Amino acid sequence: MDNKFIYTARIEVRYAETDAMGIVHHATYPIWFEQARTEFFRVAGAPYAEMEKEGFASPVLELGVEYKRPCHYGDFVDVETTLEILDKLRCRFNYKVFVNGELCTSGHTVHIFTKNGRPTRERPATFSAIEAKIFGKPENS
Amino acid sequence: MDNKFIYTARIEVRYAETDAMGIVHHATYPIWFEQARTEFFRVAGAPYAEMEKEGFASPVLELGVEYKRPCHYGDFVDVETTLEILDKLRCRFNYKVFVNGELCTSGHTVHIFTKNGRPTRERPATFSAIEAKIFGKPENS
Amino acid sequence: MDNKFIYTARIEVRYAETDAMGIVHHATYPIWFEQARTEFFRVAGAPYAEMEKEGFASPVLELGVEYKRPCHYGDFVDVETTLEILDKLRCRFNYKVFVNGELCTSGHTVHIFTKNGRPTRERPATFSAIEAKIFGKPENS
Amino acid sequence: MDNKFIYTARIEVRYAETDAMGIVHHATYPIWFEQARTEFFRVAGAPYAEMEKEGFASPVLELGVEYKRPCHYGDFVDVETTLEILDKLRCRFNYKVFVNGELCTSGHTVHIFTKNGRPTRERPATFSAIEAKIFGKPENS
Repeated sequence: MDNKFIYTARIEVRYAETDAMGIVHHATYPIWFEQARTEFFRVAGAPYAEMEKEGFASPVLELGVEYKRPCHYGDFVDVETTLEILDKLRCRFNYKVFVNGELCTSGHTVHIFTKNGRPTRERPATFSAIEAKIFGKPENS
Repeated sequence: MDNKFIYTARIEVRYAETDAMGIVHHATYPIWFEQARTEFFRVAGAPYAEMEKEGFASPVLELGVEYKRPCHYGDFVDVETTLEILDKLRCRFNYKVFVNGELCTSGHTVHIFTKNGRPTRERPATFSAIEAKIFGKPENS
Repeated sequence: MDNKFIYTARIEVRYAETDAMGIVHHATYPIWFEQARTEFFRVAGAPYAEMEKEGFASPVLELGVEYKRPCHYGDFVDVETTLEILDKLRCRFNYKVFVNGELCTSGHTVHIFTKNGRPTRERPATFSAIEAKIFGKPENS
Repeated sequence: MDNKFIYTARIEVRYAETDAMGIVHHATYPIWFEQARTEFFRVAGAPYAEMEKEGFASPVLELGVEYKRPCHYGDFVDVETTLEILDKLRCRFNYKVFVNGELCTSGHTVHIFTKNGRPTRERPATFSAIEAKIFGKPENS
């Protein structure tokens, strides 16, 4: 199934995110990816904080980042976010970080789902909204 | 002189900012204060990144935070920011962090100014804009 | 009562803790203070992680930091830590950060105690060890 | 060439590194990897801060992390670090994070070298020490 839904989070670089090289520190990107996921879930109709109240969590299983150009204090970054996979076992997000339309960094995360601390194939009720919006599945399928 | 200019930065709590107590970690607040200052300077017409290009910096001399109620993942916080003092020696910002209109945390920072790494009484050219906007001084005084 | 017990935590500056000014970012110090407290409680015989298993926590009520000289990547910092007050209502720690014996930063934190999420005057069982070691009280007083 | 040199950095989990899931936040691991590299370079006889004084830097080109088991506040983690590749173009480090001998996380970073901000094939003078110690090359080769 083709996923046409792309969410772009706009983030202003924080001074605390820079390092002594004068650029954004490389460990900042996973945090931006996470902020973009938070916004993605909210915009897609399934806020993560709500999922947590139902006992769900989606811990990270895998993280990958490729650094092409540095970002700097003063930049506004655009984190283009796509949910590439969402199946019974896991989900995978891809990210591209742009400054003024120029690609700086790309990355991905793979997540599992847990309920009350244990891996689960169950999904939060709100996820039918995501599937409808993002993958074009009818909500009652 | 009375400072009527209040800038409020809205920030969505990041998951990375929480801790094992389930609340926002207390060392996050100085970073939010800093983000609020960045926005404050930009909105007031004197972007900090521009000041840095002229060789200026304003390192922190003093920080104080009082914690009243915790913030949580899922919250949008409003950081009400006022520039209380701006004189030849230093500047002082006050901050109040609200969630849904309820005061959670308050704090302040005191800064000096440096040019090319040394303390200075000189101010960036853009600061006349701040003084006009915030303290009501005419720009050419 | 006079507190003679001073604990000094030695920490190597992390690159991620620096910022684009080439110095340690000011929001790093509260995290070093916390690491020093963790070591302090452990060395004093009352590991904080054990206290948490009994349902206790000691959230921060107040934080103050004064910055005198910057620290840099490559430095080993010594965080001299004293428990100044420990009574039924709160505790207060003081900190001094040195590099090569030179004072860089000082600060303090004030904490309350909670049990199962509510403020409490009860103290973890292990605290009699702290009181004996630090304030010279007999363990059964 | 076979690299037999393994450096293990021991790190005590900081409270600030945990998140609301009660575990160490996933963006903490790249920072631990970096701390392990700092110690690795120092122990191998080529302190990174010294390299910086000569104008060198080694920005991260690629980061990968696989999460197997969570780490918690109260844990001491051992970050087993190996320099797998060190050639004219780049270097690659591998990391394994253990708690009590149990593998929790593994990862790698790939770095380039720059001198005065530009990519370079030159290496800091101290690197012959690394090559001798780690890859068994004679120091004058």
